[in-house]
Amino acid sequence: MTKKPLILVTNDDGITAPGIRTLIAVMQEIGDVVVVAPDSPQSATGHSITINNTLFVNKITKDGDATQEYSCSGTPVDSVKVAVHEILKRKPDLCVSGINHGSNSSINVIYSGTMSAAVEAGMEGIPAIGFSLCDYDWNADFEPTKTFVKQIAQEVLKNGLPDGVILNVNLPKLTAAKIKGIKVCRQAKASWQEQFDKRTNPQGRDYYWLSGEFVNMDNGEDTDEWALANGYVSIVPVQYDLTAYHAMQKINNWNF
Amino acid sequence: MTKKPLILVTNDDGITAPGIRTLIAVMQEIGDVVVVAPDSPQSATGHSITINNTLFVNKITKDGDATQEYSCSGTPVDSVKVAVHEILKRKPDLCVSGINHGSNSSINVIYSGTMSAAVEAGMEGIPAIGFSLCDYDWNADFEPTKTFVKQIAQEVLKNGLPDGVILNVNLPKLTAAKIKGIKVCRQAKASWQEQFDKRTNPQGRDYYWLSGEFVNMDNGEDTDEWALANGYVSIVPVQYDLTAYHAMQKINNWNF
Repeated sequence: MTKKPLILVTNDDGITAPGIRTLIAVMQEIGDVVVVAPDSPQSATGHSITINNTLFVNKITKDGDATQEYSCSGTPVDSVKVAVHEILKRKPDLCVSGINHGSNSSINVIYSGTMSAAVEAGMEGIPAIGFSLCDYDWNADFEPTKTFVKQIAQEVLKNGLPDGVILNVNLPKLTAAKIKGIKVCRQAKASWQEQFDKRTNPQGRDYYWLSGEFVNMDNGEDTDEWALANGYVSIVPVQYDLTAYHAMQKINNWNF
Repeated sequence: MTKKPLILVTNDDGITAPGIRTLIAVMQEIGDVVVVAPDSPQSATGHSITINNTLFVNKITKDGDATQEYSCSGTPVDSVKVAVHEILKRKPDLCVSGINHGSNSSINVIYSGTMSAAVEAGMEGIPAIGFSLCDYDWNADFEPTKTFVKQIAQEVLKNGLPDGVILNVNLPKLTAAKIKGIKVCRQAKASWQEQFDKRTNPQGRDYYWLSGEFVNMDNGEDTDEWALANGYVSIVPVQYDLTAYHAMQKINNWNF
């Protein structure tokens, strides 16, 4: 009998979100699971960490379940740091984050707490995957994602990941029968066109709600946006070496 | 007479920080300056944005100074979004962020609110630079940075930046006479080794302070860490296309 892999599960929608409950259920089929996740929603917190405030961690007591769960008062990245350095007895074999309620494809990866948690695990040398379902509904149907989530996690456990690489997996909002397969993609060139909703509060002071429209400016058929629009699960390998190597030569020619 | 460039100034240490005051003074020498920056310190907030809360913007009234200043209740990235979409009449010719109190070299770029603000401006198609001084002191001496900050900003105004590229500039804590020059670098492979400081509050509940030690694992002489340790200003061109192109082929060979 081989030893079961140790799997750290986290997310950014908070430990009670249906997405993470699905992810926990799938991971329990393939490994020993420890959950360390934010105690409240932390969407769009990016790679934020808590340096000017205290962090609280609560062990959640449950009956008849071997999985340990902890809620953390901080961000998704804080949760990974505290899991690795304070909670886990050894480095996990895999870290999975999600399943996010909503897309983290293309430029969304930059804002995503889900993906930042996975990236932080990658920086700790842990093979890591962020999973997101293209459905923002709290009551989204996560059932069709299960087969793909399990398959991709198992492939990462089997093959490992190249140094400094983390997987950004997005799943289309489709029934299992309608999903055509899995595509390895590049991040589409897309952006949010912001619209601020300006209002006035009862004291007469103006305030804003951030809102906006997602615009895909990329016609490529090798992008995550194309894959998702055409019924595929998208996998973008992402990295945290942000150096734009192609631009170095040009800037070296400047007048310094 | 040529029209003066419009320059947006922001930061993550808050609008009253000495670092941004220095940056404003330098930018006033080369352009028309509008400042939109957080009303409180926002270090290590990464690419966090405010989607579940309201945003307040306050115009700061000043005597005898053409520069417009606005404080924003949100993150550095919020500040850039609200500047571009609500405050500025036209797209700025340059966005500068900083000067950060403390290094944003190597892996720090991932956590940095200073750099995330610059990256957000880059995503809006605005040439953008993040400046950081390798001195965390609130009363750090920013005087020696001025020549370099001005020179680099002027080169960006003159040459522009390649699509999707933002500059991460770090300045060593040295007198102007001791700074040897400017080097275009790659991001060093480095990481933070976290140590959590565990304490107990008066109610008997455990809590943590995040702390850690920076470890450079990169011996290359083409990195930002090398440049800074050897008396140079470092410039790393960074990008927000996070795709690890080199890993795509390998993952395509997996069993899907």
